[in-house]
Amino acid sequence: MTTKSVRTHEISADAKKKLRSVSTATLTSQLQNHGFRNTFLAGLYPLRPDVPMVGYAFTLRYIPAREDLADERYDNTKNVQRLAVEAVGPEDVLVIDARGDVSAASFGHILGTRITQRGAAGFVTDGALRDTPFFQSLELPTYIRAAHATTSFVAHHPVDMQVPIGCAGVAVTPGDVVVGDAEGVVIIPAHLAEEVAHGAYEQEIREEFFQEKVAGGASIIGVYPPNDETLAAYEEWRRARGD
Amino acid sequence: MTTKSVRTHEISADAKKKLRSVSTATLTSQLQNHGFRNTFLAGLYPLRPDVPMVGYAFTLRYIPAREDLADERYDNTKNVQRLAVEAVGPEDVLVIDARGDVSAASFGHILGTRITQRGAAGFVTDGALRDTPFFQSLELPTYIRAAHATTSFVAHHPVDMQVPIGCAGVAVTPGDVVVGDAEGVVIIPAHLAEEVAHGAYEQEIREEFFQEKVAGGASIIGVYPPNDETLAAYEEWRRARGD
Amino acid sequence: MTTKSVRTHEISADAKKKLRSVSTATLTSQLQNHGFRNTFLAGLYPLRPDVPMVGYAFTLRYIPAREDLADERYDNTKNVQRLAVEAVGPEDVLVIDARGDVSAASFGHILGTRITQRGAAGFVTDGALRDTPFFQSLELPTYIRAAHATTSFVAHHPVDMQVPIGCAGVAVTPGDVVVGDAEGVVIIPAHLAEEVAHGAYEQEIREEFFQEKVAGGASIIGVYPPNDETLAAYEEWRRARGD
Amino acid sequence: MTTKSVRTHEISADAKKKLRSVSTATLTSQLQNHGFRNTFLAGLYPLRPDVPMVGYAFTLRYIPAREDLADERYDNTKNVQRLAVEAVGPEDVLVIDARGDVSAASFGHILGTRITQRGAAGFVTDGALRDTPFFQSLELPTYIRAAHATTSFVAHHPVDMQVPIGCAGVAVTPGDVVVGDAEGVVIIPAHLAEEVAHGAYEQEIREEFFQEKVAGGASIIGVYPPNDETLAAYEEWRRARGD
Amino acid sequence: MTTKSVRTHEISADAKKKLRSVSTATLTSQLQNHGFRNTFLAGLYPLRPDVPMVGYAFTLRYIPAREDLADERYDNTKNVQRLAVEAVGPEDVLVIDARGDVSAASFGHILGTRITQRGAAGFVTDGALRDTPFFQSLELPTYIRAAHATTSFVAHHPVDMQVPIGCAGVAVTPGDVVVGDAEGVVIIPAHLAEEVAHGAYEQEIREEFFQEKVAGGASIIGVYPPNDETLAAYEEWRRARGD
Amino acid sequence: MTTKSVRTHEISADAKKKLRSVSTATLTSQLQNHGFRNTFLAGLYPLRPDVPMVGYAFTLRYIPAREDLADERYDNTKNVQRLAVEAVGPEDVLVIDARGDVSAASFGHILGTRITQRGAAGFVTDGALRDTPFFQSLELPTYIRAAHATTSFVAHHPVDMQVPIGCAGVAVTPGDVVVGDAEGVVIIPAHLAEEVAHGAYEQEIREEFFQEKVAGGASIIGVYPPNDETLAAYEEWRRARGD
Repeated sequence: MTTKSVRTHEISADAKKKLRSVSTATLTSQLQNHGFRNTFLAGLYPLRPDVPMVGYAFTLRYIPAREDLADERYDNTKNVQRLAVEAVGPEDVLVIDARGDVSAASFGHILGTRITQRGAAGFVTDGALRDTPFFQSLELPTYIRAAHATTSFVAHHPVDMQVPIGCAGVAVTPGDVVVGDAEGVVIIPAHLAEEVAHGAYEQEIREEFFQEKVAGGASIIGVYPPNDETLAAYEEWRRARGD
Repeated sequence: MTTKSVRTHEISADAKKKLRSVSTATLTSQLQNHGFRNTFLAGLYPLRPDVPMVGYAFTLRYIPAREDLADERYDNTKNVQRLAVEAVGPEDVLVIDARGDVSAASFGHILGTRITQRGAAGFVTDGALRDTPFFQSLELPTYIRAAHATTSFVAHHPVDMQVPIGCAGVAVTPGDVVVGDAEGVVIIPAHLAEEVAHGAYEQEIREEFFQEKVAGGASIIGVYPPNDETLAAYEEWRRARGD
Repeated sequence: MTTKSVRTHEISADAKKKLRSVSTATLTSQLQNHGFRNTFLAGLYPLRPDVPMVGYAFTLRYIPAREDLADERYDNTKNVQRLAVEAVGPEDVLVIDARGDVSAASFGHILGTRITQRGAAGFVTDGALRDTPFFQSLELPTYIRAAHATTSFVAHHPVDMQVPIGCAGVAVTPGDVVVGDAEGVVIIPAHLAEEVAHGAYEQEIREEFFQEKVAGGASIIGVYPPNDETLAAYEEWRRARGD
Repeated sequence: MTTKSVRTHEISADAKKKLRSVSTATLTSQLQNHGFRNTFLAGLYPLRPDVPMVGYAFTLRYIPAREDLADERYDNTKNVQRLAVEAVGPEDVLVIDARGDVSAASFGHILGTRITQRGAAGFVTDGALRDTPFFQSLELPTYIRAAHATTSFVAHHPVDMQVPIGCAGVAVTPGDVVVGDAEGVVIIPAHLAEEVAHGAYEQEIREEFFQEKVAGGASIIGVYPPNDETLAAYEEWRRARGD
Repeated sequence: MTTKSVRTHEISADAKKKLRSVSTATLTSQLQNHGFRNTFLAGLYPLRPDVPMVGYAFTLRYIPAREDLADERYDNTKNVQRLAVEAVGPEDVLVIDARGDVSAASFGHILGTRITQRGAAGFVTDGALRDTPFFQSLELPTYIRAAHATTSFVAHHPVDMQVPIGCAGVAVTPGDVVVGDAEGVVIIPAHLAEEVAHGAYEQEIREEFFQEKVAGGASIIGVYPPNDETLAAYEEWRRARGD
Repeated sequence: MTTKSVRTHEISADAKKKLRSVSTATLTSQLQNHGFRNTFLAGLYPLRPDVPMVGYAFTLRYIPAREDLADERYDNTKNVQRLAVEAVGPEDVLVIDARGDVSAASFGHILGTRITQRGAAGFVTDGALRDTPFFQSLELPTYIRAAHATTSFVAHHPVDMQVPIGCAGVAVTPGDVVVGDAEGVVIIPAHLAEEVAHGAYEQEIREEFFQEKVAGGASIIGVYPPNDETLAAYEEWRRARGD
């Protein structure tokens, strides 16, 4: 268990910009092309659908609470949740494995403020969150499974950080690239993120062309997927557009 | 399996206008009067709660994906989902039986654009939808069970269209009248739709009268349900109001 | 079964004002200090997140519908739901035990209007509600588990009022203090409500101080929880602030 | 809240004998003929599938546990569960409304022994049971939703007895006739029980005739449902058989 | 919609014998080798775990019940469930798509007797079954999701047969090979069944050899999966064994 | 992550013998006395209800499968599941955190044979198991959530062993004492196991006395809980009995 940000593969500024502009839907398609079928975190919703999220996974793992593990609840030198909060670095997305248990919260507003100050790029839990009205005004993209006012230690005990976890049915390893939009969150294995970013960007330009045709009244036949003629028209349009 | 719009009973322009103005709550009450107990699609939510939906059911049925059924995924001449998209006609509501399975999407934005262009009156699925942020800006009333970015063929294989289906626990047959408001979706057997539309309209006028009384401080006793005196007052008010 | 408002412990105007200003998250923490672990109603959402709710529990209990219990559906002199509506008094929150069953509604718009007129302070059900678009414009804080257009008697039969119930997994006894915010609803045993209100108010002032420090860039170490230095600074700040 | 056995309608010894011999499947069909659609307790299983159960409902209602309601846990003069155990009489079936919550038990082996001694005809809960291996050897037909070793007061607080309840999705009123077989439990409104018993007995004789035909190779066409010829043959066979 | 048994690929007597002897676990492994990941029907249990099942899928599809579709309930010339029962042929396994809805039965004992007489090789539903105690003594391998005494038409309306369906999360097309053991049911696409049968048989012989080694105290290292030495020993053993 | 058996507290032979004789119900009561409320693994069932289980937890943690983590599936030198199988020692109970995901198995028969040979005292998973018919004849107490024929790597990837985990909603740390009977599994923190064993043994003797009284016709009043007279009688009986 490391207690530092993990960067197995840094992604370029250009790739980050592209990831911020594309949809999670497009990203899952790109990952599907690489053979990855299960990359979208099911059943979560955003509290800031207006703020796109791009960052690196900083994982935190909870197990069910147990009475003899409760001593360190408020001890910032021992409590793993607190240690993680002070270990999260710039561009990290804190991703909590709360086992999908929403019978109590898994995080709250002062800790959320702290990771925002530390430069966190987002927050994701497959459990519940408390102080959700506060988070709706915090400039931190936040994805949760439910709101629950009760403090985390009623249901959860944090045990380690920066280990591989499951979150909302998807594997997350430290340093994975985590992207979120108004639809939800996708996990991109770090070694693929650069390629996926560029591929997704191109896919969206291409689909923009098809979409315009269809919005203009064209049938999907010959357009989506494109036949040779549409493809040729697209390539010309693409060249003219540049970028 | 037909591949055309089905109209077992056309409803009048007046009935359509009334259906657009009444609530799904009122419609279920009217259907209850006709002995229909299970007409509201449970667990769906609207992406365009501001756009009322009235149309005829155009059904599409999915089964679980299987690897040997995958060849025709993008083949617009064979893939039943694609065939359905190009068969949907004006005033049709595309209703998908996705078995309530939300582990992947059941539809996406280019196909949504296409059916809008073809005049579709709405889109309903008991599965998930991808590109949901896009659908929130599309002028197509859309009802779904969940958002999921992953493309449909990971979980679903479309097998036929315009057959009776189940959607969100309710039977839907081709040509049924489908009405949606901000609360959700109700299915009206086509042969009853004209009568139900007029009945619902009258019920809402009557309840408006009771509601005004109650909002003005009256007890529900004698008002809701009405006693003879209230009924007489109502009938007078109704005559005065006209329409 | 009484049919009147229950006040085992009246709370002061000051406490009510404080309860209206604090969050349900803070209240669960205070209740946790008193040994209460399970006080937040899980899985409900507000239709009026902008209107805080403070009142006394007026309970109503439903059992599954049965055909031979259906006669009194619309009889305001016998139907227990209707009797409850006309018994709810000022500052009461009507809390329905609908067994978490959302296969039909548990309440509707004319009855909601009536309890608002009678001075009700809120409405809570662990079942579904119909006419939800209407309730979004009614000045009555309303918490529900789902929207369902179908009228309640398809699934529910009201049997008694002002008895102890379970609602959304939490015990509710008549006269309990019920508080709601945009996150959800918390139940406070009446004999603790005065103390919990003041404690919660103080906790929020204290956390405001910590929160400001953290929002200003301070580590949580030494601040949350506070060390002696922070505590001294807080106490000085608190005295200066007054109130 | 009475604390005695309730007999709104006593059923004859002959009817009891018939109820003991017929299946719950047949009983639901008979109740369907009387317009009752929802009479079978869903999701329960028997611990003594070999012992048929016939008796009168003695209901017991639980709400979620709360810390300030815990004092009377072991007080046989106040704890409603204990009072119910000492109130159950001969031929009563103790039916517990545990809200379907199986996170702890709702009953255990010494109390089970006691109601057996008091002449109880069965035990039904829509919650969990502890000491299930013991109950498998107790001569008391027992139907539960799950096994859970943890004692009931961790999750439940008993509040009243002999009131109408919901159990496993079905309404149960005190004195209802409760019948169980290896398939599960059916609730018969007391005023119908005598008639339903005789009807079910006749239905099973009739179906035995059809079943024999089908087991002998006959098509269901003309037999199930019977045409005039089959009906005539049946009536002759029935007369010959007597009883 | 055909109303006959479908045999897109007949399997040999040898393959049938092998399918009867191997486990569903081994079959899923073989199918995995062919790229099929989702072939086991999740959440069903056998009523006759002692009787292995091998046959061809005869599918039957239900939608939710609706009051205006109820006329043909008992009409053997129109009711699709009844038509299917009289169409099932020798070696067919009747597989019902009941949408996983267990709120009422999907089949009963006289129909079960009839398909047994017609030579059916098994019965599978992802809904509930009534008369389950009877089916436990019927020589027909039967797999269900739940027991429920209530007759099917309360929840279900049969609409067509011999169409592709989903059952317990798996695609089933008419003529697929359906195999069941005490663990559950696996669907084998017909064109692969012969090859899968032989492959599974060989796999089990090979695993018997590894299993014996491990049961005799060997480490799995070098044995499972086998290294070259173990493989050589296996091949010698296999030759000596013959068959 | 250690790869050895963990014994933070060894328990005596006498305590082991007592744990083998008492019920999990009694053990949860003893743990409740020590303040532990959540110790029973919810929703699991035994494949060998006839074989009691007592041992020390050896934990294994799975995350969701991911395509780029699949290389080591069959590599006994890298695959953590395989490493754990060869690390489990005598008296260890292998406890798998499979996140409650039953969409594929988490273990199978050759591995089960191997840990039996290595002296394992039991196997527990909150996921599914394949080859369940085999496990019913293996002399290894086995507790599972479901049967599923599909091999584990379709859904799961093993990541570490001998770390604290959650299993079926309960915290399990390496070296915890794990006890199972026909009802299910309870986790005893190692430092309490000796005391809990003796306490449970005494509790069962005491309850045997009460149970005999009640089975002989005594009221629970004065007996369960006992009044002074019963307590005195018990103490005399206890002394006479000895042991």
